[in-house]
Amino acid sequence: MECYLDNSATTKALPEVVEAVAKCMSETYGNPSSMHLKGVEAERILRTAREEIAATLKVNEKEIFFTSGGTESDNWALLQAARAAKRSGMHVITTSIEHAAIANPAKQLEKEGFEVTYLPTDEIGRVSVEELKNAIRPDTVLVSVMGINNEIGTIEPVAEIGEAIKKTNPNILFHVDAVQMYGKVPVYPKRMKIDMLSVSGHKIHGPKGIGILYISEKVKITPLILGGGQQKGMRSGTDNVPGIAGFAEAAKIITGKMEEDSALMCRLRDTLIEKLTKLEGVSINGPAKDETTKEFAAPHIVSASVKGVRAEVLLHALEEKGVYVSSGSACASNKPAVSATLKAIGLPVELLDSTIRFSFGIYNTEEDVVYAANAVGEVLDTLRRYTRR
Amino acid sequence: MECYLDNSATTKALPEVVEAVAKCMSETYGNPSSMHLKGVEAERILRTAREEIAATLKVNEKEIFFTSGGTESDNWALLQAARAAKRSGMHVITTSIEHAAIANPAKQLEKEGFEVTYLPTDEIGRVSVEELKNAIRPDTVLVSVMGINNEIGTIEPVAEIGEAIKKTNPNILFHVDAVQMYGKVPVYPKRMKIDMLSVSGHKIHGPKGIGILYISEKVKITPLILGGGQQKGMRSGTDNVPGIAGFAEAAKIITGKMEEDSALMCRLRDTLIEKLTKLEGVSINGPAKDETTKEFAAPHIVSASVKGVRAEVLLHALEEKGVYVSSGSACASNKPAVSATLKAIGLPVELLDSTIRFSFGIYNTEEDVVYAANAVGEVLDTLRRYTRR
Repeated sequence: MECYLDNSATTKALPEVVEAVAKCMSETYGNPSSMHLKGVEAERILRTAREEIAATLKVNEKEIFFTSGGTESDNWALLQAARAAKRSGMHVITTSIEHAAIANPAKQLEKEGFEVTYLPTDEIGRVSVEELKNAIRPDTVLVSVMGINNEIGTIEPVAEIGEAIKKTNPNILFHVDAVQMYGKVPVYPKRMKIDMLSVSGHKIHGPKGIGILYISEKVKITPLILGGGQQKGMRSGTDNVPGIAGFAEAAKIITGKMEEDSALMCRLRDTLIEKLTKLEGVSINGPAKDETTKEFAAPHIVSASVKGVRAEVLLHALEEKGVYVSSGSACASNKPAVSATLKAIGLPVELLDSTIRFSFGIYNTEEDVVYAANAVGEVLDTLRRYTRR
Repeated sequence: MECYLDNSATTKALPEVVEAVAKCMSETYGNPSSMHLKGVEAERILRTAREEIAATLKVNEKEIFFTSGGTESDNWALLQAARAAKRSGMHVITTSIEHAAIANPAKQLEKEGFEVTYLPTDEIGRVSVEELKNAIRPDTVLVSVMGINNEIGTIEPVAEIGEAIKKTNPNILFHVDAVQMYGKVPVYPKRMKIDMLSVSGHKIHGPKGIGILYISEKVKITPLILGGGQQKGMRSGTDNVPGIAGFAEAAKIITGKMEEDSALMCRLRDTLIEKLTKLEGVSINGPAKDETTKEFAAPHIVSASVKGVRAEVLLHALEEKGVYVSSGSACASNKPAVSATLKAIGLPVELLDSTIRFSFGIYNTEEDVVYAANAVGEVLDTLRRYTRR
């Protein structure tokens, strides 16, 4: 049996997505910047895609910009919004559990003279709105908080944070990395007072190499990539029409049935947790571990620590049984590094290297998680038989 | 009849490319950063693609970095190589006929305090190696010259320029925007003393949204996009495996039969020019116009000016007959702007807005260019019948 439970790393594309991409590569292959019919055809696909994606976020299509993915979107938002606001102040607030696509640009800003506050989290990975409020200074120009943590599935209070920021100082920009959030739980930038929002295609069964940055019309930001002036000069480079069409297809389909998919994933999550916690030495991390905090848990992510077993060993043993999970964040590169998120939630040091992540996509079933939990049990039995305790 | 002669704007993907992309989206869809089998499979595709592409340039696969396209590659090379070399000097040399993906980052460098020299060209668009030598100063850190001009098809003397630069000061970095060059004429960075080279997928019947930047192992450059540390930390973001696999497929096929394809395109070019020049008021721009300079002409680009007729009018009249060409550069955005290239070669002002570009791809035939030339003739007859002269 093959049991792909690494959907937060990447997903299998929907057949409709593959079809849309293939069609734009071989039929409507024009360059939207070309003035002739082939260009106009491509431009039309682009416009429709932009409208469809904007509709899923309830924003204006003029506020949707296409990028090469979540990482570029995050870089663009953080680096260029901060740089553009430099004269108003050089203080940026983010969290200690951001994806590297935010954490590393934040370090870059520090090199450029910005001061960055990294908010801590509680033991389930939630940022405190109070602490955020206290961190805001007169020279704060930008706040960036992820929507859902990619390692332990914490849903952050982005609407409350948006509210708090704008009440304190409406000029402070608010960016949300919604790469793990979009298509899983509702996210509406206007309502949540989010000025910029990053989304990635391949996390929602869309194409790799495509993402968006929603930028509210009110935001002052300069381009990260300069050139031929595509996308109103904000992101140059020939528009990736196949990627964009595929992304729109995925966005429509996934957000269209989000409620039922997420409900299913919640059941899968709960079944998996129930079965895993029965195994000796296994503990769950993040808000899903407890009934009282479950409301803050993403439907699709389960983080589990296994005492005395190295994550890598467990991962490869599960792989042998056709179960694919990740150790640590895994949409980072494959060199093992200590997870900032797991440290932030105060996971005991001995468990840092013993934590794996299961993550669901629309193709997963109840059968998958039962099989996976049983596989973990069998692997632990075997490993412990051969391991000094 | 449909006659797509705008291949320098973008091309129709090869069926093998579409197949490779589709397969990586629905079968080998793993994230190369994942440690399990699905990741390893994807990583293998990535590695093979990198090796295959490196082989076409006769460089080491470690020197190939994937980007979202030619524009990102150009931005990365120009901005980050210059910024990284800042302490050695703040002088950059480029030409007055570069694509906007170089010209605009060059302007950005000027804003950051760099001094940029824009080399002029002769009347066929060639940069003078002598003038380049004279422009080099002790504080010059970077030279960027395009391989083939995208508007008039001039082949620049990049090997001679590389030689001249390195003789003067081996520490000066040499970047070549080879977006219109790769797959049309031989380009070997090592032999040509090129340190960085930009290539785009969709100009060679590969996917949109993918490109490479060749970076010689000796080059000091910082990343443009930061994050999860993919590509040895040099270009973060989940690897676009479908795009990369499709790019490799196109690169192999196109460079594999480059000699015969280019020979055919040269014949198409010459036929088209022969027929166009017989029409009243039509003149050819760039090196292809004359036997004595033809050796510097790209196989695939014909720039023609039509006295008294606005390019846009001609373009749309040709479109009605199924002939797709571009006005001006056209892989820039569709807002009309005066072409820097046409100005640089001293085209009479009255022709600046009367110039169209025909550009060939592997699907074009002799029949296409005969049809296109006849179409231009018919359109001119019609237009002139209704136009005061």
